[in-house]
Amino acid sequence: MPIEIPDVVIDRLPVYARALASLDRQGRDVVSSQELGAQLGVTPAQIRKDLSYFGRFGKQGRGYNVKRLLEELHQILGLDRKWRMVVVGVGQLGHAVLSYGGFAPQGFDIVEAFDADASVIGKQIGDLVVKPVAAMREALAGQHIDIGIVATPAAAAQQVIDALVESGVRAILNYAPIAAHVPRHVRVKDIDPVLSLQSMTFYLKSDLAHSPPK
Amino acid sequence: MPIEIPDVVIDRLPVYARALASLDRQGRDVVSSQELGAQLGVTPAQIRKDLSYFGRFGKQGRGYNVKRLLEELHQILGLDRKWRMVVVGVGQLGHAVLSYGGFAPQGFDIVEAFDADASVIGKQIGDLVVKPVAAMREALAGQHIDIGIVATPAAAAQQVIDALVESGVRAILNYAPIAAHVPRHVRVKDIDPVLSLQSMTFYLKSDLAHSPPK
Repeated sequence: MPIEIPDVVIDRLPVYARALASLDRQGRDVVSSQELGAQLGVTPAQIRKDLSYFGRFGKQGRGYNVKRLLEELHQILGLDRKWRMVVVGVGQLGHAVLSYGGFAPQGFDIVEAFDADASVIGKQIGDLVVKPVAAMREALAGQHIDIGIVATPAAAAQQVIDALVESGVRAILNYAPIAAHVPRHVRVKDIDPVLSLQSMTFYLKSDLAHSPPK
Repeated sequence: MPIEIPDVVIDRLPVYARALASLDRQGRDVVSSQELGAQLGVTPAQIRKDLSYFGRFGKQGRGYNVKRLLEELHQILGLDRKWRMVVVGVGQLGHAVLSYGGFAPQGFDIVEAFDADASVIGKQIGDLVVKPVAAMREALAGQHIDIGIVATPAAAAQQVIDALVESGVRAILNYAPIAAHVPRHVRVKDIDPVLSLQSMTFYLKSDLAHSPPK
């Protein structure tokens, strides 16, 4: 594909796919960009523009074929295959990640789990037994792992990320509150609830300033 | 403030603040936009442009005063005060949220927790006792709550969000995999690891397509 597609467009496609999957389950065949936009809180023009990067999907005035657009988005996003993931850090959060039922149905399989804590190593969670993080490189050698989920404390995270990258992982889902350093070919998505909260308080604060006192 | 500030700019400010806080702890007095950018993986021009929405911070060629810029960002983002939050849904994820040590030091206090499950209601977690979600409106009446954290299953989430909004909550941190509907005056930030993964697989897939076979 010769055109550079903005990251924000790529970030919206899974949201569209999720909404289309829900419409498909409801037995809907066609949806307009108006209706999809209203459901998702984006403008119809935005949806049409985002999809236009990938070709022509809807027919003028007829809306989108739900199943076909969903399939196309799955292909575009690489959701028509399985992805192998490892989790590093099996504290409360890592445990919640390992127990979350939402990954596997979407093709994201967690195939290994690691921790540094002797009281957690050897523990069975679902089908997995937690292995020592010190032996991670050996454990991953020869395995093809696509994605690393980092749920360690902040202080350990960069070192873990380095080891994952050296083991061939090309995408990191980072729950640790650090700005991870990775080579150019590796993608990182941060999940940090504090940053999300802090970007909302800007608006809460402004509302307070602009509302009349009660 | 008469100028409309893009949401993406507001989203980056907490990241800047986190990096500055870390520099401040290391005893650093001054930082250049080059160094800050290199740490965070954004261009120095981006940082300067983002900050220019809020006035002049750095002196040409002298870099930013770490403490002063941090304080200004705290004021801009409303991080110089306390925010009151409730958690709804105390499953594995909600439990991890309630036990997370990262909220309170940043001024985010969880003051109530609710669940629908009789086996969870009445449970003590830290200083809180989980209350029945059916009694949430009564429990929140007369309280000032800023932010609701929704960690319920998808099917329950919209109803919970409606109840939170009716109780005066103006910001929702939504862990449920739904596109939440809220009135215009309410902010929502979604935390959905599946969406984050799905926006990375686009790039993994493209890499595979473009790399020579091994």
